[in-house]
Amino acid sequence: MTTTTAPIRNGVDTAQVYGTLDAVKADAALARFEFRATNRWINGPHSRSTIHGFWGAGQEDTSREVPFVLDASEPPVLFGDNEAPNPAEFVLHALAGCLTLTIVNVAAARKVALTEVSSTLVGVLDARGATGIDDSYRNGFEHVRVEFSVKGDAPREKLEEIVERAKARSVVYDIVSNPVPVDVIAEVG
Amino acid sequence: MTTTTAPIRNGVDTAQVYGTLDAVKADAALARFEFRATNRWINGPHSRSTIHGFWGAGQEDTSREVPFVLDASEPPVLFGDNEAPNPAEFVLHALAGCLTLTIVNVAAARKVALTEVSSTLVGVLDARGATGIDDSYRNGFEHVRVEFSVKGDAPREKLEEIVERAKARSVVYDIVSNPVPVDVIAEVG
Repeated sequence: MTTTTAPIRNGVDTAQVYGTLDAVKADAALARFEFRATNRWINGPHSRSTIHGFWGAGQEDTSREVPFVLDASEPPVLFGDNEAPNPAEFVLHALAGCLTLTIVNVAAARKVALTEVSSTLVGVLDARGATGIDDSYRNGFEHVRVEFSVKGDAPREKLEEIVERAKARSVVYDIVSNPVPVDVIAEVG
Repeated sequence: MTTTTAPIRNGVDTAQVYGTLDAVKADAALARFEFRATNRWINGPHSRSTIHGFWGAGQEDTSREVPFVLDASEPPVLFGDNEAPNPAEFVLHALAGCLTLTIVNVAAARKVALTEVSSTLVGVLDARGATGIDDSYRNGFEHVRVEFSVKGDAPREKLEEIVERAKARSVVYDIVSNPVPVDVIAEVG
């Protein structure tokens, strides 16, 4: 893009982004977002989530005409039949998607045109935790490693700075890196 | 099921599960799992992950003939076009799927036949964090609420105990509730 006003950079309409930021600055109630999923067990480790509406920017979102439907399961070695990725793999996907879109948004704001953002993620865990064999191991990932390849129209230092800034602003990086209070309540019987 | 040996309960082959647990107890190296995702930016907030192999139970898994492909994006209010659920919603799906399959596994081990496991999840965040408008808000979820409905062939107390035990053993509940070290490295240019 060579226009100097309202450029769409990296597929991001920066005028729209700045407009939204101004609106949120003026009315903090617009900043509240409430995302939702409903899930139903199918069989064995296989379940299905439905994701549709959410609250955000001061209203119930109605932009999605049909819900998203996502399955989760396990491979045979974890007693499923590969009906879908497993939940831990969905966490890696969420982290990849979030860091990537945050890199893209930060680059757009800094007037950097990107040509590539790709990543490889690895999450390691010891199943002695989750199986209850040895409580000295945690249930979840011991660590996650994310390797990005980022290419664009900016010097190396600026691209590195964009990745660092994205890390400091990513919703899912925060959720994974820091504790989130999770209340689980159950109606049984 | 009325058989007394090797029952399949809730779709879980408990003989297989106990066999695997015995194998892991005998050889701790089998407990190491390494899950992976690769991701590539498409445009704006839209990216695509590929999930295929993983390391687990002492070998590279080859049970998946074709990879899983998952997109992530944002709704228009967050500058996307609803190409897919957003990353925060994927975290809710991962959490729902993981708690559900852990409830099912725990119930199977305790000889409880379930008839329903359904859940509704809500994750709340204040976008003043992730947008950088006000650093006193975190980027990610302030809290997540999970409401289960669990029905099965057991007294109320036993079903409640199963949910509590599942919470204490869920991989993704742990990942979300507790800090996971995440290394992000970037090759740029």
